[in-house]
Amino acid sequence: MSVTLYDLAGADPALRFSPYCWRTKMALAHKGIAVETVPWRFTEKERLAFSGQGRVPVLVDGEHTVTDSWVIAEYLEDAYPDRPSLFNGAGGRAHARFINAWADTSVHPGIARMVVRDIFAVIAPKDQPYFRASRERTLGATLEAVVEGREGRLEAWRGVLAPVRTVLQAQPYLGGAGPSYADYILFGTLQWPRCVSTFALLAADDPVSAWFARVAAARTV
Amino acid sequence: MSVTLYDLAGADPALRFSPYCWRTKMALAHKGIAVETVPWRFTEKERLAFSGQGRVPVLVDGEHTVTDSWVIAEYLEDAYPDRPSLFNGAGGRAHARFINAWADTSVHPGIARMVVRDIFAVIAPKDQPYFRASRERTLGATLEAVVEGREGRLEAWRGVLAPVRTVLQAQPYLGGAGPSYADYILFGTLQWPRCVSTFALLAADDPVSAWFARVAAARTV
Repeated sequence: MSVTLYDLAGADPALRFSPYCWRTKMALAHKGIAVETVPWRFTEKERLAFSGQGRVPVLVDGEHTVTDSWVIAEYLEDAYPDRPSLFNGAGGRAHARFINAWADTSVHPGIARMVVRDIFAVIAPKDQPYFRASRERTLGATLEAVVEGREGRLEAWRGVLAPVRTVLQAQPYLGGAGPSYADYILFGTLQWPRCVSTFALLAADDPVSAWFARVAAARTV
Repeated sequence: MSVTLYDLAGADPALRFSPYCWRTKMALAHKGIAVETVPWRFTEKERLAFSGQGRVPVLVDGEHTVTDSWVIAEYLEDAYPDRPSLFNGAGGRAHARFINAWADTSVHPGIARMVVRDIFAVIAPKDQPYFRASRERTLGATLEAVVEGREGRLEAWRGVLAPVRTVLQAQPYLGGAGPSYADYILFGTLQWPRCVSTFALLAADDPVSAWFARVAAARTV
């Protein structure tokens, strides 16, 4: 049974930068499930029509088509109960939903406002007009204006990661002794700017940097 | 075997407002453990000397003395494994540590800067000089200056609760179908200003208000 993941790609088809696709790829690696990733571009909506919507990740597992990274994580946990757990119990799953919401509402938007112009620079030319128009509408300014002065916003953004640093004083992963899906959530959020930008969000001596390296090393994907 | 909790009190000994003591009281109620609470004031350090430190909550369970609300929650989970679980598994415990750190680093400080003057007004007169001096040193301004303009900071503070609202769209409690210690963490943080101030932090139609009422109703303490 082959597993296929539609994975957001840049102009270079090897550049895969979606934070949500990264969560799914890490979850698949955690479960030990081999996957064939298919590069997909923002404007190729018709290629996802079979999934009933137009965004990635889209996972095709035999006869099952699953969309939305959180729903995919729950699907993998339930469809592969004999593989290593992503949540380590019902409480772990319920609480991971909070960490997912926290990353999406409190960490992600600040990153977007620092690297959105860098994303524009690396995506496929055919995607660029769509990306610029849709993001400028959402952000209320040109991509260039949005990222202006990002250096001055870096410290406030780093402050949002304070609870991660507190947790890492007590345990090596958000999942405890080993990585859980909670770690892959934040990993995906932070891997995203690393893939598209040379603007360094984390200080080298930030404990979050060491944690990021540990998570990456635990799951070579 | 009697269980005793040293619980921060105001000038009125019935006024118990510590966010951390509230977490412990909710956890004890969840476990179905009867407790005798002992009113304690900030300056009564010598009364806690037996615990090896000077802050509440201090739980005395037979021969065990346990301090720090997080450590107490772990103690109760391990010492009373046959009672309803606070974490629902190892993953739940690991991830609850994140929620604990998030509440303490991202939610609590903004509340302190809105209600610290109100706390001063309700604590025991003998505590007031200590409280003013220690808090003004930490906050870098007089209590009156710190709370000034709090109305203007309310919307930004409410924004920090965004992940809670996202979770509540999918499940009634942070713990899932029922409350877990994660719910009691945030309950304690929000119960604290309610006990000491008439300044309303949550809008009546905020889903967090409905969740707060549900948690309070689930554990009548």
